[in-house]
Amino acid sequence: MRKIDHQECVIPVRDALDVISGKWKLLILISIAAGYKRFKEIERNTPKITPKVLAKELKDLEEHRLINRTVYDETPVVIEYSLTPYAETLEKVILALRDWGANHRKQIFGK
Amino acid sequence: MRKIDHQECVIPVRDALDVISGKWKLLILISIAAGYKRFKEIERNTPKITPKVLAKELKDLEEHRLINRTVYDETPVVIEYSLTPYAETLEKVILALRDWGANHRKQIFGK
Repeated sequence: MRKIDHQECVIPVRDALDVISGKWKLLILISIAAGYKRFKEIERNTPKITPKVLAKELKDLEEHRLINRTVYDETPVVIEYSLTPYAETLEKVILALRDWGANHRKQIFGK
Repeated sequence: MRKIDHQECVIPVRDALDVISGKWKLLILISIAAGYKRFKEIERNTPKITPKVLAKELKDLEEHRLINRTVYDETPVVIEYSLTPYAETLEKVILALRDWGANHRKQIFGK
């Protein structure tokens, strides 16, 4: 890890982890990025998440300005979630995690 | 997030997050990468971590084969931690988080 300078890394990495903390936020962003905009769709495409946890994580993501919540005044009311331009900046992090996770699976399960 | 394919991303990203879950593991790896090999050194260089949490996280990291624990039979006994070659594969994830975190700080605090 030659490129890793302790002082330069610890605080920004901690800040990043504070925002995307836990195991759900990035998975939810991936689901919304894939076009799943409604609560039930996101829930179905985020393995093992519960409705209660999803509701809280969506609220956090909105506060961190990573997603938008749009309410359509129809009957019944329709609520849709979308990524903000700011969420796009997480693409590099998600791709790095995807590559590492895929490799990790090969290391552990050999497939 | 054009490059993000839902099926291709969700499981590997979840696997990666399972391994580096929580806010401490990557920070500990960064401290060890910087040359802080002993428990007290790592503790001092991982902001706000408690000894009890550090002990548990070091054990997890060892189980995930990301660090080695070497015991030197001296008086008193000396224990040192070092990164495994496998931990090096996390460099891209750490650098992506560092860049995102540094940018996030500018977005939020304007500096």
